[in-house]
Amino acid sequence: MSPSNESSTAAAAAARPGKVMTLESINKRVVNFEYAVRGEQAIRAEQLRKQLADRPGSLPFKSIVSCNIGNPQQLQQSPITFFRQVSALTEYPDLMKPENLPMTSKIFPSDAIQRAKELLVAMSGSSGAYTHSQGIPLVRERVAKFIEQRDGYPSNPDNIFLTAGASPGVQTVLQTLIAHDKVGIMIPIPQYPLYTASIALFGGNAVPYYLDEARDWGLTVEELSRSLAESRSQGLDVRALCVINPGNPTGQCLSLDNMRQIVDFCHREKLVLMADEVYQTNIYKPAELPFHSFKKVLKSMGPAYEGVELVSFHSVSKGTVGECGRRGGYFECTGIDPQVQEMFYKIASVSLCPPAQGQLMIEHMVNPPKPGDPSYELYAKENTAIYGKSRPESLRRRADKLASAFNTLEGVTCNAAQGAMYLFPRVRLSDKAIKAAEAAGKTPDGFYSMALLEATGVCVVPGSGFRQEKDTFHFRSTFLPPEEQMDQFIASIKTFHSEFMDKYR
Amino acid sequence: MSPSNESSTAAAAAARPGKVMTLESINKRVVNFEYAVRGEQAIRAEQLRKQLADRPGSLPFKSIVSCNIGNPQQLQQSPITFFRQVSALTEYPDLMKPENLPMTSKIFPSDAIQRAKELLVAMSGSSGAYTHSQGIPLVRERVAKFIEQRDGYPSNPDNIFLTAGASPGVQTVLQTLIAHDKVGIMIPIPQYPLYTASIALFGGNAVPYYLDEARDWGLTVEELSRSLAESRSQGLDVRALCVINPGNPTGQCLSLDNMRQIVDFCHREKLVLMADEVYQTNIYKPAELPFHSFKKVLKSMGPAYEGVELVSFHSVSKGTVGECGRRGGYFECTGIDPQVQEMFYKIASVSLCPPAQGQLMIEHMVNPPKPGDPSYELYAKENTAIYGKSRPESLRRRADKLASAFNTLEGVTCNAAQGAMYLFPRVRLSDKAIKAAEAAGKTPDGFYSMALLEATGVCVVPGSGFRQEKDTFHFRSTFLPPEEQMDQFIASIKTFHSEFMDKYR
Repeated sequence: MSPSNESSTAAAAAARPGKVMTLESINKRVVNFEYAVRGEQAIRAEQLRKQLADRPGSLPFKSIVSCNIGNPQQLQQSPITFFRQVSALTEYPDLMKPENLPMTSKIFPSDAIQRAKELLVAMSGSSGAYTHSQGIPLVRERVAKFIEQRDGYPSNPDNIFLTAGASPGVQTVLQTLIAHDKVGIMIPIPQYPLYTASIALFGGNAVPYYLDEARDWGLTVEELSRSLAESRSQGLDVRALCVINPGNPTGQCLSLDNMRQIVDFCHREKLVLMADEVYQTNIYKPAELPFHSFKKVLKSMGPAYEGVELVSFHSVSKGTVGECGRRGGYFECTGIDPQVQEMFYKIASVSLCPPAQGQLMIEHMVNPPKPGDPSYELYAKENTAIYGKSRPESLRRRADKLASAFNTLEGVTCNAAQGAMYLFPRVRLSDKAIKAAEAAGKTPDGFYSMALLEATGVCVVPGSGFRQEKDTFHFRSTFLPPEEQMDQFIASIKTFHSEFMDKYR
Repeated sequence: MSPSNESSTAAAAAARPGKVMTLESINKRVVNFEYAVRGEQAIRAEQLRKQLADRPGSLPFKSIVSCNIGNPQQLQQSPITFFRQVSALTEYPDLMKPENLPMTSKIFPSDAIQRAKELLVAMSGSSGAYTHSQGIPLVRERVAKFIEQRDGYPSNPDNIFLTAGASPGVQTVLQTLIAHDKVGIMIPIPQYPLYTASIALFGGNAVPYYLDEARDWGLTVEELSRSLAESRSQGLDVRALCVINPGNPTGQCLSLDNMRQIVDFCHREKLVLMADEVYQTNIYKPAELPFHSFKKVLKSMGPAYEGVELVSFHSVSKGTVGECGRRGGYFECTGIDPQVQEMFYKIASVSLCPPAQGQLMIEHMVNPPKPGDPSYELYAKENTAIYGKSRPESLRRRADKLASAFNTLEGVTCNAAQGAMYLFPRVRLSDKAIKAAEAAGKTPDGFYSMALLEATGVCVVPGSGFRQEKDTFHFRSTFLPPEEQMDQFIASIKTFHSEFMDKYR
């Protein structure tokens, strides 16, 4: 990444050591924060990918398998046809000109054409114009309707903010909450590194609560209370609780009872509840552990809980949509002071608007073809994997297969995924391996993950990037590789692991 | 915006006044920063637009004319056909399947099809996948080639960062620079509010230097020196100079001599030069004041200036491209410490990647059809306005026409636009008008601009949002309304202005 191989840059640095911007002079928060998902392993994987392209056969593997990031379409999940048809039509409306329409109608179904026309009207006629900073009003109305149908409680488009993926939404709320350097934000450990990175950048304090690996990464209110009491006793002004459900990197799904306890905890302790629900359709045990939104649970608890402040996040990046590259997401505010929502708007307005193509994909996600529509049958097939190879059923099979494989490895245990896209196996490393890691200036799981990458081309993220209980080591791997590649993928990990264990025995 | 009309939210706020997040408790920087382009006028304009839709005829005008923001395609600038053809094909690659190709080839030229195929390969086969956090390598290579051809000096793709429009790039550099609360960043006055907003959010200090309205908003090194000396004497650690060229909101273009002096000033005073060059193709006096990039000027000054740290910003939002809704931009680093560039990468990685559709548009902007390509002729027509109504020639005519009209108004003077998309006329308001504004709790130009909006539907931004010399009042208006609407637009402003002046005489 940004290597220093431009000779003029290097020469300049040498000629004039006193740059204005150096690691010593710049913002320490920028220097110190960590973001592992695109960290050392990902950078090395890019180098290896380039080497394979330039010199095929020069490495012990043929391709890089990017299991470091939930990037479904990179790993051959196909987009939903209807969604892309509408996108193409809004991108090039000339397809719908009278002279082209006869041909267009042979390729595009009538409901896609109708939807594209409707959306173009909602966008001043062009998908290239800035939209409302909070998002296209029509799309926010559709999101509110989707939420009402999902939860059975009202939703107001004025409380919906469309965003460039879930991440900038989370950052908007954190930036607003962190008013001084003693503000604490409760986050699960292990967590998605967006949280620790953003809290560090905004100058707050991550307040860790631990998920219980021995109980399927369960979240208990006892642990929340312990964590809160400890951090308050240290003088922190703890203001919010972040919950990721389904969990990332852990894949756990919260039960309804558990969620009620969490809402009650936030109410009692006066904490803003930040509900990261981007994996709400990646559910693998729908009978035992279906998805419930925190909005629904909160509303079901009655007027006593009306005051609870909740911000819920969703995204087009995951689930069967998997359109992460276009950066689309939204958050819904429940019980948030209207003046604070105006501040969210002001922050959004500095970035002018979320990407229009991301906003359109949100519309498609929350308003897919309905029974009777020309595109419904194909949509339903693609979405439920009656035929598809890369939809929820298939993902569940892959999750189970990979977890089983990890559990056969020496010193490795791995909980099954109840949701999301990841496994987070624990690896017990020998003292010799830990010392070798230390000598190499790496964390033990970073050392293991890098060795895995160099030997097999499989890129995972070390558990230290997500934080973990002291003296435990993990890595996060997506289970997105296509089913037909799964056996080979597992075989290469198995071979690597047994050689690694032998080497450091 | 975000009105409090959801009864449950309002009731909750009343029932439980002690919200965690209130204007009193949240981050003061968030509460205090200003962003006028999408401020009070824009919010009121949205309300009026809704009223016109719900109750046509209820207002003294028929439509809202959004001159508050440079949003070309909202004001009927058509997209470049080739660019959108490639977008549609990458969105729905099934158009290029063998069975569809005969029909597709009747609507899409062969070079669009070829380009779409090439770009899909560069994106792991899908425009829905996350890309490299720094941007698709192929697109960065194309940007570097474009810069080399534009400037005649080498450019390295590793020093290019693709971004979601120019704004997040500017914010990345400011966030890195602002290491403590005494850091100063020099900005022009008047300025684009992104700068004051971002500097305030990151906790730095805006160090104003004034453009000389009497000399076509000229920038002098004397004024830079005065401003720098004054702020350093106040104990500020001034680290960077922001220059917007062509200017926003002022439309001035810097001469080559002037630019050399500025580079010399940065070198002498050890300042990072941040060059906002997003209007580089909006040039209206190409013979006298052509665009020069700071990169070219810096490189032309020889080895003595090699050490200068320069970050140059560009965007797909302006010029003849005008694709602001998809959020595409880039910045190039020149003379930046490689370790600092790694920090830029880390910041970029938290947002995962810039929107893929924005990245593709960058590719098209820097690599348009060439002479001999099937799409060249149409592209050239659209780009140079031999036929088009909304290309540079037409924009120049509109700029001149609107400036002339402003100059006929009582108490108004307006410099001609040399570049960009805006006029920034000065309005001399009477004491009576100033007192009426005060009584209404508004700035004098805010009061004037709001009255203009209520009377005519024309939405402009008060000069106070850009900052201005003490006791002077301005507003910023784009000159983007279509030519055929220009006369009516000017007539309604003239009527309003004369009535306003009479009322407060």
